[in-house]
This record gives sequence, structure tokens and C-alpha cells, in this order.
Amino acid sequence: MQRALNVTRERFADWYQAVVRDADMAEPSPVRGAMVIKPWGYGVWELIQQELDRRIKATGHENCYFPLFIPLSFIAKEAEHVEGFAKEMAVVTHHRLKLIDGKLQPDPEAKLEEPLVVRPTSETIIGDAFSRWIRSHRDLPMLINQWANVVRWEMRPRLFLRTTEFLWQEGHTAHATEAEAVEETRRMLEVYRNFAEDVLAMPVIAGEKPEHERFPGAVNTYSIEAMMQDGKALQAGTSHFLGTHFAEAQNIKFQDEAGTLTYCNTTSWGVSTRLIGGVIMTHGDDDGLRLPPAVAPRQIVVVPMLRDKPEDAEVLAYCENLVKALSNLTAFGQPVRALLDIKKIKSAEKRWNWVRRGAPLIVEVGPRDAAGGNVTYMRRDDLRDGDKVKSVVKLRVDFVETVVQTLTEIQAGLYADAKARLDNNIKRGIPSFAELAAWFGEDEDSFKGWARVAWMRPSGVALEEIGLKLKALKLTIRNAPADQPAEFGRCIFTGEPGVEEILIGRAY
Amino acid sequence: MQRALNVTRERFADWYQAVVRDADMAEPSPVRGAMVIKPWGYGVWELIQQELDRRIKATGHENCYFPLFIPLSFIAKEAEHVEGFAKEMAVVTHHRLKLIDGKLQPDPEAKLEEPLVVRPTSETIIGDAFSRWIRSHRDLPMLINQWANVVRWEMRPRLFLRTTEFLWQEGHTAHATEAEAVEETRRMLEVYRNFAEDVLAMPVIAGEKPEHERFPGAVNTYSIEAMMQDGKALQAGTSHFLGTHFAEAQNIKFQDEAGTLTYCNTTSWGVSTRLIGGVIMTHGDDDGLRLPPAVAPRQIVVVPMLRDKPEDAEVLAYCENLVKALSNLTAFGQPVRALLDIKKIKSAEKRWNWVRRGAPLIVEVGPRDAAGGNVTYMRRDDLRDGDKVKSVVKLRVDFVETVVQTLTEIQAGLYADAKARLDNNIKRGIPSFAELAAWFGEDEDSFKGWARVAWMRPSGVALEEIGLKLKALKLTIRNAPADQPAEFGRCIFTGEPGVEEILIGRAY
Repeated sequence: MQRALNVTRERFADWYQAVVRDADMAEPSPVRGAMVIKPWGYGVWELIQQELDRRIKATGHENCYFPLFIPLSFIAKEAEHVEGFAKEMAVVTHHRLKLIDGKLQPDPEAKLEEPLVVRPTSETIIGDAFSRWIRSHRDLPMLINQWANVVRWEMRPRLFLRTTEFLWQEGHTAHATEAEAVEETRRMLEVYRNFAEDVLAMPVIAGEKPEHERFPGAVNTYSIEAMMQDGKALQAGTSHFLGTHFAEAQNIKFQDEAGTLTYCNTTSWGVSTRLIGGVIMTHGDDDGLRLPPAVAPRQIVVVPMLRDKPEDAEVLAYCENLVKALSNLTAFGQPVRALLDIKKIKSAEKRWNWVRRGAPLIVEVGPRDAAGGNVTYMRRDDLRDGDKVKSVVKLRVDFVETVVQTLTEIQAGLYADAKARLDNNIKRGIPSFAELAAWFGEDEDSFKGWARVAWMRPSGVALEEIGLKLKALKLTIRNAPADQPAEFGRCIFTGEPGVEEILIGRAY
Repeated sequence: MQRALNVTRERFADWYQAVVRDADMAEPSPVRGAMVIKPWGYGVWELIQQELDRRIKATGHENCYFPLFIPLSFIAKEAEHVEGFAKEMAVVTHHRLKLIDGKLQPDPEAKLEEPLVVRPTSETIIGDAFSRWIRSHRDLPMLINQWANVVRWEMRPRLFLRTTEFLWQEGHTAHATEAEAVEETRRMLEVYRNFAEDVLAMPVIAGEKPEHERFPGAVNTYSIEAMMQDGKALQAGTSHFLGTHFAEAQNIKFQDEAGTLTYCNTTSWGVSTRLIGGVIMTHGDDDGLRLPPAVAPRQIVVVPMLRDKPEDAEVLAYCENLVKALSNLTAFGQPVRALLDIKKIKSAEKRWNWVRRGAPLIVEVGPRDAAGGNVTYMRRDDLRDGDKVKSVVKLRVDFVETVVQTLTEIQAGLYADAKARLDNNIKRGIPSFAELAAWFGEDEDSFKGWARVAWMRPSGVALEEIGLKLKALKLTIRNAPADQPAEFGRCIFTGEPGVEEILIGRAY
């Protein structure tokens, strides 16, 4: 059996690395912890950006761009009012390089008076702008989004999932009332949920993070959590209600209709290139990546089977016409993205390149197809029949006529598979912490899924202790799903009456 | 006469600042030399990106993303082989902040072994990737583009024109032959020229930079130069043929069809947020900005004249229908961007906001318009009749039917005005350097335009001397226009026979 990868999902971490590499998505860079995003990976990001940006604008937000560098004093101010402040960040201390003793180095005479921090997130610098931009209730709500690169020093980087530099969007908003800010926080969580499911075909559970997992300074943090094929959770997006904490620290005030100066309520929310890691671990198989058509840079790849013979010209012309006909179609609200692959490598090699990269449909056209008005194609989501690759021959006219329907089916099928996996792997009814520990076991790498259990929602020291107990098992509370039952079992940690259900699992 | 700005173009530098501020395009940030790009300014950038990206992809390039940080050793390598290497750059030396004696500062224990430079441009890090990605002639041409932020320490920043951090795209390509690389360099210059003229309505002169103005390490540098309303030149885009210089320094080789290992020929080319400064200084007038419709975030703004009276509802409904009808139209290949401005501020204030921001068409609808099926509108490109604002009343159906034509006319009119200014302000026939100096005079701020003169194209020391003589007059050679005559006058610097015509002017 011809195999596209040299590792299967049984060794999930190795498999992930192999897919990222062999699907030509990204590679490690010479800068520790940073990545180079290659055209096929960046193409997925562009489609994510395009579609999510449309949704962010449709909910009334405008894009801005704020500086990459943040004065140290801003971070110091945040550090003061936020417990658990993260300090791993890239610090710029000089603005010139100089050859000293034949060695290029930071020029001691060009030391910055105040060091600059490379943004790990932009709450402080955007808050500073808000404090200048917002004067009156007429300026509210202030609804801003930014697409940018951010830097967080990572000791154990993993491509897309955890890198020193990554790309993201960060929304920052200010509102006149708490109710409006809470509504905004939830609205954007819902935008993320919907986007993940509709566009990435990645089912998620939306809910609220427990107190000890909140963004530092947030009143509430919400997340969407996706289940990867190894059963682990991927936090795929977060939305924070910040109350007036940041407004107070940064003096973001407005004059209300009565003329009183009042602090704004603010929010922030973001998703990142991490989503691409989520797509890979949700849909990939032992042959490599499978891309949902909505985010496939090429949805249909046409490979002409050329043999250096006179009939090649006919095959090529036939393929060109096919690609033209496909490009005139519309799928997922966009022109169909079809490619004619005329690279000078062998056809078989091309086939496996596109299989590994996860192009949803791979069409091969030989002289017989061209002569007969046929196409031979493979569906990447349904590639094999046992050991054999499933090649379907169809009349070209029929193929073109039904291809948008086929792409829609592929998208829906990938979602349905992932949804079934999520639904079937949430364990309910575990009565105690001891049984929870036993159920998860000690082998981090064996497939488990998540546990959905009741708890009494403790806070403070009691919660910290629970967090540590879970951490010892490499477990975390993912979130309290938005959709809660009417009645609850006993708290798994204390045996007291429960007040909420939470999801517990291992996570990226 | 009601005025939108408190300064005219007579004081051009102050006027520029006022337009950027009052059109709500951008503002200085608390970080020295960096800017905050506000929604209206960023909206222009998004349209520039969208349309230029389409053209970059249509010429076969793919987008990637490379790390923000560049190892110092890469820069050191470049410094060795490139004369005139610029050393003002932001240097990251630490990866952690720590409270020491109650003060947050770079943690001495988290000093990087090798400092990192924040990318001023990505030749070195992309070249490093090319040296890994390119093996065979089948991998060529390698056609890569990146949209990114870059940092160059600026001592005298000016919003959009010269900032420590700015946004740009940088193309980087590798080719098997010199001829192909030269062709690519020129092709992308032509993409820029066409884009500047068609989309920004900004006429430019494309040509080759003289030797001493080349990008360090380039064999040839080409630019497009635009004339601002104060007569100064703005270098609006550059395209570099790098020969094998970078390939040799970075070991970018390929095996040709005969099996021989050969260095690639490489190119790079870029435009930046500086283009927005060019749009402002090309089209702005004493009332503020005038945006070419192709890059106006809102092409038509509809302002309902509300009076807190019952008929307001009718006016609003009428305006909503109008905006809906407009949004269904297509202009410049995109849906028309119309906005209903329902902010709770006075209508007169709204009018002047949109005048300053340069929205191409501003429509005002009062109860009488709504009742009569009319619209009252202003064309921003033709705002005044003496001291009066030109308001035109038209039947709504007629307005909607002709509005795309009107937008096209506005775009063409802005271009024609700027083109006439450029053509009329290139002085020819200056016979000597003394007369050139006299013609330009010493007052940098008086309008002059450019001189087009012949020279013998000296190089080396002779050219350096000419550069210094010009510099003393604050003049530079902009480029040698692509379009050259068959015969040349005498060299303005030496009196010898000329071999080329060049443009000389003051510049941003």
C-alpha cells in the first residue's frame, strides 16, 4: 500500500510534525521558537483572515493598527494591577548596531532610555489610545480590531500551536455599560464558535473558563474548545469581559448623558494561527492533511498526465478548459479555487503531494480522459478503498455540474466526523475525583477525550488546590459549557451539591 | 467662508499634519517615531493591500510569512558584503522582565546569547530559506511575497512618510538566469506604476536610480517617483535586481539542467504605508483629504438631516433604501461602499467630517428630499463654487443610475489633475549646474518641481562628488526615466556629451 507519510496518528506528536512538514505548511526558523509559514499554510491563514474579518466587520468593528513596541512603563502599570502577570517577553534595549573590535553588536551609546517590549498583546497600548479617543457617550461603543504579529517567549515551541511569534487578530472594545460589554464578549465568542464550525469544520464547545484560568485582569474569560484526534483539547479562541479593571488602570472614561464622568467597561478577544494547528489535528489522516474546502487554498487540483508525446497538447488544452470552467463556479460565497499543476515533476509525485497537502479534490487527466470527455478524480476525504486509492471516472460535464455540491458535501462530512468524535468522547457520570484520576490514567498519550462533571464552583484557595491536583495528572478544566442542565450531580471534588458542569481534559 | 481646516497648502508641512489629524487617518503614538493607524487610514491601507495583492498574485507570486526577528549573525554577514550597510535598527537583547528593587526591568539572567534584530527588511532571513528550498532548476523561479511590519529607527519621523515602524509588502524572488531576474524586476516596477496610476490616481515616473542611490547590494535599483503638490518627489516604490550578490552571500544555488551547481539571480521589491502619505499630498486640498474612489473606505456617505421630529423616521427609511440600492452597485470591480452616517452629532458637523476625510460623494437627505424622491449631494473633488459649497439636487433614481459613472469620473479627474501638475512642472533645457542651482534656489519650501537634464552617467568618485554638490542644495537625482530620447544634450555636470536623462528634485 502506497503511503503518503512515514508515520501514523498512533504516534500523534510525530505525526503532527510530519504533516506540517510534508504538507508544506510551515517550518522552524533559524530564530529559536519562531516559524516560517510557507505558501500552503499561509494560504489557509489568508482564507481564515478573509472570512473572519468579514464577520468581525459585519458585527460593527473597524480595523486599526497599533505599534509593535510598547513602552516598558505601560507594562509596569499593567504588572501592578494584574496578578499573575507574565514576564517572558522580548525586550528591545538598543537602537543601533556597531562594529566593535570587528564584531557587530548593540551600540552601548544607542541604549534606549526606556526599554521597549515587543507586544505580547495590545491591551495597554490600545487602552492608552482609548483614553484619548473616548470623551463622551457618543463615542461609545468603541469597536476596534487589529490583525498583527505578537511575541511571547516560548521555551518549548511547536509549529502553529505554540511559537514565540505568531499571527492573530485582537479585538478591543469599550462600552458605556457592563451589560453591553458582557453582550459583546458573548457575541464575539459566538462569532468564533460559528466560524470554527462553519468554516473550519471544527466543532467546539463554548463556555466560561474557571476563575484561575482567566486572562489576568479579566472579570470573565470565555473560550471555545475543540477536541483533537488524540482526545486533547485545543483552546481555539478566547473572549474576555474586562469590567472596568483596565479602564481604571488606564483612565478610560466617558461623560454619560447626565454629564457624569464614568469608567468604561472593556472587552478583548482573539484567535490566532493556532487555528491552523487545530485544522490539522482535527482533519488530518494517515496520508497527511485533509483541508475543509472552505479554507483550502486550492479546492480542486488538476494534474495532466503528460508523457512527452504529441497528444500532450490536447491533454493540456483539455485541462485548461476544465480549470476555466471550474473557476467560473462559486462555492462558499467565493469563486472556486482550481489549479492546473504543470510543475515539471512526475504525475504520481504530484498526486501524493496534493494528497499530503489535503487538496479536497485531485483530478487526473490522461489522453483517454481527454478523448472521452471524462475526468478521473479522487476525493481526499474518502481516499481509499482498503489498500487501493479510490479513483472515480465521470463525464466532465457531470463533474463540473456537481462539483460545488461535492465540495459542500466534503465540508459537511469533515464536520460530521469531527462532531461525532467530540460527542462520543465526552465521558459523563464520573462520581469522584479518584475515579476521574483512574479514568484518565497516567499515560498522557493514550486517547481519553474529556470528562464532563459537576462541581460546586469553588474559588480562591480551594480552587487553587483543585487546580494543582488536576495539574499533577496533567489535567485542566477547559470550560463550563454555555449549555448547562437544569439539575446537577454532586461536586466531584467535595461531594457537596454541584452548581455547574465543567469539562476536564488534557490540552495543548 | 466655512473652512474645514485651519491651515492651507501654502504651509505645506503644517497642512499635511493637519490633514492626517483632521481626516482621522493616523496619530503619533507614545512610542517614539511609531504611529497609530486609525480606521479611516487603515481602511485605505486595506484597499491598497487587497488590490495590490491581487496583482502580485496574478503575476505568479505566493504569500508567505517569515519571522520578525533576525539573528544578529545574519545581519553581520550582510554587513560584511554590503557597503553602506545601515545600522539603525531595534535590537532585542533580553527575553524576560523582572521586578528588581521594585522596578520592572530587563532580567540580567535572561540575556540572549545572540541578540536579535527586528527586521528592517527580510532579504537575509528569506535568503536563508531560499538556500534550503531551492535545489534544482525545477524549483525556479521562486516567487515569494510577504505583507509585514518592519522597523527602521527614525530620528525625524513623519506620519506615513517616515516612521520607525511601518507596514509594507516585500517581494523576494530567485531565478535561473540574469535575464529572467531582470525581467521580473521590471515587471514588478510596472505593476507598481500601473497600480499607483490606476488605483491611487497618482501619476509616477518609472526609472532607474543612479548608482549611489541603489539599495545596498543591488546591481540595479528602479523606482517610481511621484510629484507632491509642493513639487517635491516621493519615492513611492522600488524594485531591485540583486544579481548573484545575495545568492553568493547566502549560498542560494540550484542544479541546472546539465547538473551544474549555479548561483541564482535574485530580486526584491516593495511598497509601504508611505503610499498613503503620497495619496494625501497628491490629492488633498485646503478642505482636507480627497480620496480617489478606488481607495476610499466609503465612497458615498449618506447623512440623514434629522430634527427630532416625526418625519425623521421617513427620512431614515428613505436613506436606508438609498444605501441598500447603492451597495448593490459595482464600481472598480467591487461592491460600492456606501455608509449611512447615523452618529448622534449635528448634520453640519458630519458634513465637514466627511469633507475633511475626503469621502468622494456626500449625500444629505432632508424631509423635503425624502418626500420629493430627491437627493442633495456634494462632489468632494469639486466642492466649491467660490465661497459656496456646491450642492446638487437630483432625482434619486437618476443619482443611483449614474453614480458609478460619477465615481469613475472623479477617479479620472483626480488623476488628470495630478498628471497635468507633473507634466507641467518638469523643467527641461537647464544647461549647467550653476543654472540648475539658480533655478532651484535656496528656499526649500518654494514650489519648484523637477529638472530633467542630461548627464554622462559618471560613477565612483565622480558620482559621489556630484551627489555631494546636489546634497548641499538639498537636491537628489530621483531616477533616469525609462522613457529616454534618441539624442542627448551635454552633461549638466561636466559639459561632456550626455548619455542619459535624469530627474533632479527635492524629495521626501
